[in-house]
Amino acid sequence: MHIAFDADDTLWHNEPIFDLTQGHIAELLKEWVPADELGEKLNHLERRNLRLFGYGAKGFTLSLIESALEVTRGEIPNAIIQQILDAGKAMIEHPVELLPGVVETLERLASQHPLLLITKGELFHQETKVARSGLAESFAGIEIVSEKDEATYRRILDRYAIDAERFVMVGNSVKSDILPVLQIGGNAIHIPYDSNWELDKIEHRGAEEEGFFVAESMFEVPNMLQEIAALGWQTPVAAANRGK
Amino acid sequence: MHIAFDADDTLWHNEPIFDLTQGHIAELLKEWVPADELGEKLNHLERRNLRLFGYGAKGFTLSLIESALEVTRGEIPNAIIQQILDAGKAMIEHPVELLPGVVETLERLASQHPLLLITKGELFHQETKVARSGLAESFAGIEIVSEKDEATYRRILDRYAIDAERFVMVGNSVKSDILPVLQIGGNAIHIPYDSNWELDKIEHRGAEEEGFFVAESMFEVPNMLQEIAALGWQTPVAAANRGK
Repeated sequence: MHIAFDADDTLWHNEPIFDLTQGHIAELLKEWVPADELGEKLNHLERRNLRLFGYGAKGFTLSLIESALEVTRGEIPNAIIQQILDAGKAMIEHPVELLPGVVETLERLASQHPLLLITKGELFHQETKVARSGLAESFAGIEIVSEKDEATYRRILDRYAIDAERFVMVGNSVKSDILPVLQIGGNAIHIPYDSNWELDKIEHRGAEEEGFFVAESMFEVPNMLQEIAALGWQTPVAAANRGK
Repeated sequence: MHIAFDADDTLWHNEPIFDLTQGHIAELLKEWVPADELGEKLNHLERRNLRLFGYGAKGFTLSLIESALEVTRGEIPNAIIQQILDAGKAMIEHPVELLPGVVETLERLASQHPLLLITKGELFHQETKVARSGLAESFAGIEIVSEKDEATYRRILDRYAIDAERFVMVGNSVKSDILPVLQIGGNAIHIPYDSNWELDKIEHRGAEEEGFFVAESMFEVPNMLQEIAALGWQTPVAAANRGK
């Protein structure tokens, strides 16, 4: 069995750092625009810039500067632009704060199975976060990818010669960590995180109908893996997907 | 024999796009600062920000905005900041322009040897450039890395089970493509490019003493590979490095 983990908001906190930064800048811009309007503008520009910037903190900072220019109609003082730049750098330097159960669970599982880390985002920033997390040693492989879709998972499974039926992905994003893995015949455990990035939300039919497992925290993952194994790796939905 | 190629300024033009962008912004800022002074400020900030941003166009754009704020002492009009953002996006979207001999040489070599592409920079941007180059099919593997040092090359050679003695790296940067490959006992062909990024320059003792080959363009690479093979993969310097 190969078990793969998402990183941001699965192993360590990430989204709150973005939210906090956005809140800080919203406060600086409140004489021009209410916070929710800035948020809408930012979501709009992030979505538009995604095909140029991809995911991550540098693209977020650039889109935040662009949002500030637009909502103030070109009246933003230079000092605030500098503060946005500084906030972007602070995000990148932010300490890596692990989620509950991560250390214990990875330690326990790493002695039994090859573990992979599969994370989406900026190569350089993700590498520094993995290094600072102190978790790198737990993983047999670390894959930093620009998008988590079916093709990406297929490529990774090929690279490590992993059979999809014996592959379990654990992550907080139904869109990126769960549905594409089910689609290629793999198994998935969803650990919901409190806040989700607007661009990472997706409509789905729920865990039972889609055929994935849900854990409340990393602490539950080892038992859930035993459950999946006991099912003979053949949940009805997974089997149906594999028959496609 | 495994042959690996650098991408930026080896397979396609890159540095001139950065230079052109910088020149364009220098023109907009000329009432505040002469172009060379802006260039010095930018180099300084890029170097300082490297440990946060890594390499690539997004970090460059952020450092360019920061430079503009500093050299104008906070007097830069918002319209110019928007123009820097737009210039950064234009860089990312810039068409991929192949260097002379690239298509012919890759086509010829790909039928005889497994080829790799090893490039440094932003994951998402490099992937789109590879896709737009039309060259992806020539390569047995594409490795986008955050830094090109000895550890990186060792990791890639391990991944593909390549013997360093039978590995040749082709690239324009002595610092990133040549010296680290020689250090791990591999072979290297340097194709100098007209302009080099300030942060990618390095002192070295010259091709003969360091033990690498120099080609004027991609056209010369196939014959040079035959030459290396004829030397039995044992140039005196490479042999000495391997004995370390």
